[in-house]
Amino acid sequence: MSTAPITFYFDFSSPYSYIASEWIEALAARHGRTVQWNAMLLGASFQVTEIRTPVSYPLKREYSMRDFERSARFAGVPLTMPEKFPIATTNAARIFWWLHDHESAERAVAWARHGLRALFARGVDLSDNAALLRLCAEFGLDPEQAEAAWSDPQRKARLKAVNDAAIAAGVFGAPYFVIDGEPFWGNDRRAQIERWLEKGPF
Amino acid sequence: MSTAPITFYFDFSSPYSYIASEWIEALAARHGRTVQWNAMLLGASFQVTEIRTPVSYPLKREYSMRDFERSARFAGVPLTMPEKFPIATTNAARIFWWLHDHESAERAVAWARHGLRALFARGVDLSDNAALLRLCAEFGLDPEQAEAAWSDPQRKARLKAVNDAAIAAGVFGAPYFVIDGEPFWGNDRRAQIERWLEKGPF
Repeated sequence: MSTAPITFYFDFSSPYSYIASEWIEALAARHGRTVQWNAMLLGASFQVTEIRTPVSYPLKREYSMRDFERSARFAGVPLTMPEKFPIATTNAARIFWWLHDHESAERAVAWARHGLRALFARGVDLSDNAALLRLCAEFGLDPEQAEAAWSDPQRKARLKAVNDAAIAAGVFGAPYFVIDGEPFWGNDRRAQIERWLEKGPF
Repeated sequence: MSTAPITFYFDFSSPYSYIASEWIEALAARHGRTVQWNAMLLGASFQVTEIRTPVSYPLKREYSMRDFERSARFAGVPLTMPEKFPIATTNAARIFWWLHDHESAERAVAWARHGLRALFARGVDLSDNAALLRLCAEFGLDPEQAEAAWSDPQRKARLKAVNDAAIAAGVFGAPYFVIDGEPFWGNDRRAQIERWLEKGPF
């Protein structure tokens, strides 16, 4: 069986990404796999694909708001939809890549978990820079350094390059997984991913 | 536990509806439920909601074509995507409601299965009236009566009323299920539906 890493694309503002982020590591580990986390901005993919967030459509909006919380309960993950939704999570994603490049992938993943849980379990508004700086401090980052990082043109270019590469790889939504070259879109592809990891391609 | 019937909305042109149509009856029966099948036209919902078929979006198109067949294999359902896709299945849906109203709900369901399997397992083009008439004959219907039925303004109005009612009920995609008032959208909500039927609301 393959032991190639699982590529995992997520957006800090995506509730289904948050739910998936809570189960992907344990599932991968059970099958001898590691996970490469990639913070991205869905907005960049949406511009290319003309896709919009599900909550922008009549009828689908009401269903989605209900399904986010039900799908979280189904997965056993605490989730309360924040009052402001969706929000811009650009700076949280830039911090992810700053930690990834200057500290370690592990530290970036820890930040991703911290940020996703803050937004979806505690209602912390990641689009509010003051709230984001408090979250950085809570996580053990120097707020001044964090703010300097997300304002740095090089860090902005880094996230843009990630988004461009994600689009080139076919990523149009999140969470999005690539396993042995096979793409899986959505928290609801969990059962198919489990089968792929257990028994191989189908 | 509730034994209220499951409302099941499907579109003859929807591959995920076809896959779901192959498992919903057995699942419902295991839990003492019946299924009320509703043929509808997703196009009518899409006009109201501004949603488009997934295969109309760049990137999402390629993924969806792959996922239709993979999801069918995952469910153990034979599916080969037809060369022409998506297609207009208005007349197949009108025959459904004609059988429903003039013969029985059971006969309409049998037609639904026959039509969905013809399109997705045998490549029969339901948008081609000659092919549809041959399918009617194969199913034991008089082709002249079938053609008269789908051309009848009253039959057209019947399908339009079903679409309007579906939209009023919040249906923006297919397959779409309502169980004890709870909406479930998508073939991939199967696991949540199973849990609901087994253990009740969550």
